[in-house]
Amino acid sequence: MTKLSWLEIPSDNDFGLDNIPFGIFSVKGHKRAATRIGDSLVDLNAIQKAGLFSDVNLPEDIFNQDTLNDFIALGKATTNRTRARIQELFSYDNGELRDNESERLNVLWGLYEVEMHMPVKVGDYTDFYSSREHATNVGTMFRDPNNALLPNWLHIPVGYHGRASSIVVSGTPIHRPKGQTKADDAEVPTYGPSRLLDFELEMAFVVGKGNELGTSISVEDAEDHIFGMVIFNDWSARDIQKWEYVPLGPFLGKNFGSSISPWIITMEALEPFRAASPKQEPAVLPYLEMKKDHNFDIKLQAIIETEKGDSVTVSNSNFKYMYWSMAQQLAHHTVNGCNMNVGDMCASGTISGPTPDSYGSMLEISWKGTKPVAMPDGTERKFILDGDTVVMKAFCEKDGKRIGFGEVRTKVLPAK
Amino acid sequence: MTKLSWLEIPSDNDFGLDNIPFGIFSVKGHKRAATRIGDSLVDLNAIQKAGLFSDVNLPEDIFNQDTLNDFIALGKATTNRTRARIQELFSYDNGELRDNESERLNVLWGLYEVEMHMPVKVGDYTDFYSSREHATNVGTMFRDPNNALLPNWLHIPVGYHGRASSIVVSGTPIHRPKGQTKADDAEVPTYGPSRLLDFELEMAFVVGKGNELGTSISVEDAEDHIFGMVIFNDWSARDIQKWEYVPLGPFLGKNFGSSISPWIITMEALEPFRAASPKQEPAVLPYLEMKKDHNFDIKLQAIIETEKGDSVTVSNSNFKYMYWSMAQQLAHHTVNGCNMNVGDMCASGTISGPTPDSYGSMLEISWKGTKPVAMPDGTERKFILDGDTVVMKAFCEKDGKRIGFGEVRTKVLPAK
Repeated sequence: MTKLSWLEIPSDNDFGLDNIPFGIFSVKGHKRAATRIGDSLVDLNAIQKAGLFSDVNLPEDIFNQDTLNDFIALGKATTNRTRARIQELFSYDNGELRDNESERLNVLWGLYEVEMHMPVKVGDYTDFYSSREHATNVGTMFRDPNNALLPNWLHIPVGYHGRASSIVVSGTPIHRPKGQTKADDAEVPTYGPSRLLDFELEMAFVVGKGNELGTSISVEDAEDHIFGMVIFNDWSARDIQKWEYVPLGPFLGKNFGSSISPWIITMEALEPFRAASPKQEPAVLPYLEMKKDHNFDIKLQAIIETEKGDSVTVSNSNFKYMYWSMAQQLAHHTVNGCNMNVGDMCASGTISGPTPDSYGSMLEISWKGTKPVAMPDGTERKFILDGDTVVMKAFCEKDGKRIGFGEVRTKVLPAK
Repeated sequence: MTKLSWLEIPSDNDFGLDNIPFGIFSVKGHKRAATRIGDSLVDLNAIQKAGLFSDVNLPEDIFNQDTLNDFIALGKATTNRTRARIQELFSYDNGELRDNESERLNVLWGLYEVEMHMPVKVGDYTDFYSSREHATNVGTMFRDPNNALLPNWLHIPVGYHGRASSIVVSGTPIHRPKGQTKADDAEVPTYGPSRLLDFELEMAFVVGKGNELGTSISVEDAEDHIFGMVIFNDWSARDIQKWEYVPLGPFLGKNFGSSISPWIITMEALEPFRAASPKQEPAVLPYLEMKKDHNFDIKLQAIIETEKGDSVTVSNSNFKYMYWSMAQQLAHHTVNGCNMNVGDMCASGTISGPTPDSYGSMLEISWKGTKPVAMPDGTERKFILDGDTVVMKAFCEKDGKRIGFGEVRTKVLPAK
């Protein structure tokens, strides 16, 4: 049953007492760690300063930092004790903070009063390509519909290294990128703003425990190395990507920006929503075998909002469609001895479902521009236009319990 | 003319008074910044503590750090003043340190007494593919000798994101990676140690000044954003790479380790060795046009040392063979608004020259294993074997002046 709090939490809110995510906020430029309960932001540094974390055994000033990396590095035993203590403090019958007005005012903020920031310093960022439906759609469009999946796809959680520096938090606008593109019938490339700007509806996990160079993480141990998850919008300039990506993969078509939701939802909060992966056939190599369910039932939405205020939901997808699980991604990523660090981020790749209304990118939704989406104002969208805001939402719902991620919201500005 | 020092510097030494590189060393675990003059290591923290940098206007404890990032971030005006002051202190006729025995003993270390470390914390790492000879060799071997270069190659400094976490300093051994490979005639992939472990002879530059997300760096301004260079060995598992890299590029075939030389040689030290790039035809797009020479004449060597002590120089190449300059690489990398940070690293890609003795990888030297290299002990090398040590050296020489990088030395250990 959903836990009750003395804070008011609307029943359809993403941030009930079972959630307790972690993020970084600031007021007047002073960054520190927070959680969110209902529509209240909870200053964890203020809670520690008030002595209310004394039984959790936390280092001094652990929340008085620009990122969560040091807190996450304390390990799950400590971060879970912290979550449990927060749940206790905000439980309906707990008066420790509820009945202490001055401390309560120190700790609680309205969301409108604060600014959210990147929750972690991302060391390295990897993007996978783990939705079979997405890979099949792309292969069908650009290669051979009868051999849409490349030969390695069912054997390897294919992935590539992305750019960590340009990952930004929800609310940060993105400028349309400029770059080289070449039309199929042109002799030479030209330079200018991308004409095919797209989103990719993804989720990403945050590494919570690293491994030394030369060692590996098994599928069984992988989730112990994952602190939590965020929504991830992998902005893509399809025309730049098309001209540059052979043979070494995506580069400037991606690294102008990626957007994440500000709250890291812990794996412990997501545990009730564990789900089976699609059946993997042919069988995977032993180092990728799963002995239990490692997928999660997370509902995903992508929405385009126009400058006039119209809003159209262009995708309803689900994280459970992922062919390769996060545990398999992490086992594969480290099977060669590659080292992970706390705060590293691994994104899923576009998560498309089986039907067109669940496709996770405009490339697929508009099928390369051949099936434009009609907007309420009479315009249409093949890709994303300047002034559009792309919003992605994610939440789990089961037996009346809801755990959500909030949203990642990004406005596209014209090329500079 | 080469500057003279009161420290003894052999005439063929890489680290004369015109060099003054920067690195991080430790004695008994205490990391701090250093330069190297001849075969002496110079503790910059000790020089600052002795008050001998008082005119340079440096922040307190700027050298008493694990990395050079904060020092580099001070900007070229300050780092160049620091270099000039070091040159002054160690000039033949300067007695400030020479005649103060106790300070001198504090400042100077034998190389055998210290351990070298990663000079910078690398935020993001990019690997380019900028040697025309290398790209042509690879295209000839794996595709069509008559169309060896892919259509984008002469228009774009092709590059991809690499893994920053697994960049290690010279002297750190690398374990042979394990992973998935598939023989051409096999139905399914298998798992095991890579059979085709290779080096790639590269150079890398260290970003000294960043740019904000959404802004670009021009070719003209690019060198102002480059602090200096190191030798870069981009370890590659050819069989893992071959099976995984389509369509998203190299991943586990590369990210098990990359090795760099410990001393960052500044662009100011390299200035006398500026050289022309190969003629670029077809003409590049305006944002990539160079108005002066942006290449450098840096002699490169790759050497295989066996466990028995044999040593064979397998490559004599030169950085000046690079078709795309560092200035063009940086302009291209940021033309879409991608942001760079101080300490980011960009490697050149394998630097091959026009003749087989100047090829920069065993893949090319042994031409896919068809032309093994004979070793003095009667064995042969198609790729790198367990127990081999790969050494790469780089130096500039002109008009009797020599500026060198020292070496990057890496022993290959068996798969774990």
